[in-house]
Amino acid sequence: MGETETGGAGSPEAPIGVFDSGIGGLTVLREIVLALPEEDTVYLGDTARVPYGSKSRATVERYAREVASFLASHGVKMLVVACNTASAYALDALDDALGIPVVGVVEPGAGRAAALTVNSRVGIIGTEGTIRSNAYTRAIERIAPGIECFAKACPLFVPLAEEGLTQGDIATLVAARYLSELKDSEIDTLVLGCTHYPLLKKAIASVMGPGVGLIDSAEATASEVKSVLTGSGLLRGPRDDAAGRRFFVTDSPERFVAIGKGFFGDGLDTAELAVLDRLPAVCAQG
Amino acid sequence: MGETETGGAGSPEAPIGVFDSGIGGLTVLREIVLALPEEDTVYLGDTARVPYGSKSRATVERYAREVASFLASHGVKMLVVACNTASAYALDALDDALGIPVVGVVEPGAGRAAALTVNSRVGIIGTEGTIRSNAYTRAIERIAPGIECFAKACPLFVPLAEEGLTQGDIATLVAARYLSELKDSEIDTLVLGCTHYPLLKKAIASVMGPGVGLIDSAEATASEVKSVLTGSGLLRGPRDDAAGRRFFVTDSPERFVAIGKGFFGDGLDTAELAVLDRLPAVCAQG
Repeated sequence: MGETETGGAGSPEAPIGVFDSGIGGLTVLREIVLALPEEDTVYLGDTARVPYGSKSRATVERYAREVASFLASHGVKMLVVACNTASAYALDALDDALGIPVVGVVEPGAGRAAALTVNSRVGIIGTEGTIRSNAYTRAIERIAPGIECFAKACPLFVPLAEEGLTQGDIATLVAARYLSELKDSEIDTLVLGCTHYPLLKKAIASVMGPGVGLIDSAEATASEVKSVLTGSGLLRGPRDDAAGRRFFVTDSPERFVAIGKGFFGDGLDTAELAVLDRLPAVCAQG
Repeated sequence: MGETETGGAGSPEAPIGVFDSGIGGLTVLREIVLALPEEDTVYLGDTARVPYGSKSRATVERYAREVASFLASHGVKMLVVACNTASAYALDALDDALGIPVVGVVEPGAGRAAALTVNSRVGIIGTEGTIRSNAYTRAIERIAPGIECFAKACPLFVPLAEEGLTQGDIATLVAARYLSELKDSEIDTLVLGCTHYPLLKKAIASVMGPGVGLIDSAEATASEVKSVLTGSGLLRGPRDDAAGRRFFVTDSPERFVAIGKGFFGDGLDTAELAVLDRLPAVCAQG
């Protein structure tokens, strides 16, 4: 605890902090690393308390604050909330609490959907929490008030993706069950509002048909990270050495590394255990 | 915290504590209440950190200790671990740490399977953690060394049950995928080693066929609770007033009450929020 990486929170040399409820946020980290290869990164996956998607706003907000404190103690210059549920429920609270820029995945995904729809009918799929929060619908309506939004929670998609059942009979039947209403709504654009859903792209596309564009927030989020860093003078310049990558999890690091390679690719070789609820912030008032 | 119900931990008048990672343990509580209607009960569902089944032994053990401390602070005379994963991973640790009898669901379920199998071939299904722990296999082999055990983790069964997809195409396809190996092993008895699985009994039975008996640990656990209380002189005698029922959860009580009625039936009208990681036990050394 209290250990700070080189640079300090306000410096371009400080790392970017990225957090997710588990492993899915690694797809967002991968896009950030592709867009900004010179930046150091510190990732935290809250694998001991995953999933966030079925939990209440109050609980998700508390978890997000604890994770943000942990990453802040590592001197990050920016916090990226890669988890859709945490972005939907906790972004404002984190923005108020931290003295650094905070970027979520909802606004960038909503912006891309608003830019791409032609018939102004956009679908949104996500966890129970993300859909109940209405965060995507509100963001899209704020960006382009004429767009009509249709939202549907798909709770089985994450367990299907984690079981590797991304194609075949079961995936197609589950996708058909969740998506038939959205298909009837004649949307032309569908936001994949959960980091796991891009793994089910084929099953989702086979139900929705070729006329519906699928939006994955990861790339849009990486663009937003770059533009916020540039705007605030925090973009790191060219360097000779390799960028630093640290990975923390709250449950077994071994399991995270084994499964995480499929999400992140090369460069994820070790992870460290983070014990969030022993942080001074949680116990100080006890 | 520190609040103690009437009687004190060593007295027959003290309540029975029952814990589960979430809502499934209510089926075990229901059997206990049917077998021992005069006993007061205190239930805790750790809904803020559910599920336990995909998490590591170390994490499940830590959670189980925190929950046990909470229930001990309510003066329970016995702890029933209704969660299969927590029974498989943490029962010995709890037994060592607490000065009261601790009953899990694994031993009772294993005992019933050993008593019922005719061809000495028993299947066990459960979460990843329960299966990885080998707790059922070890318990059955200890009770009846000649029995051959065949185990299989079925991670999608809990999300299917929670989505209400307990029958139909999707449930049958998922059951067939998980159970085909067990069917080929010619077992005559199958332990449903997770509190959610009895909800999928029809789909499981349709795949396994009529020659395979399905064992649900809840009833066997209630018998074991009665026999341990009797043996230790802690059985509560007849009473004129109604037995007390308290329900605690770590996430939204409203959601728990709404869904929990389906598992427990009448008598679950309110639940209270328990904040485990602010217990003195966790922060005292900070």
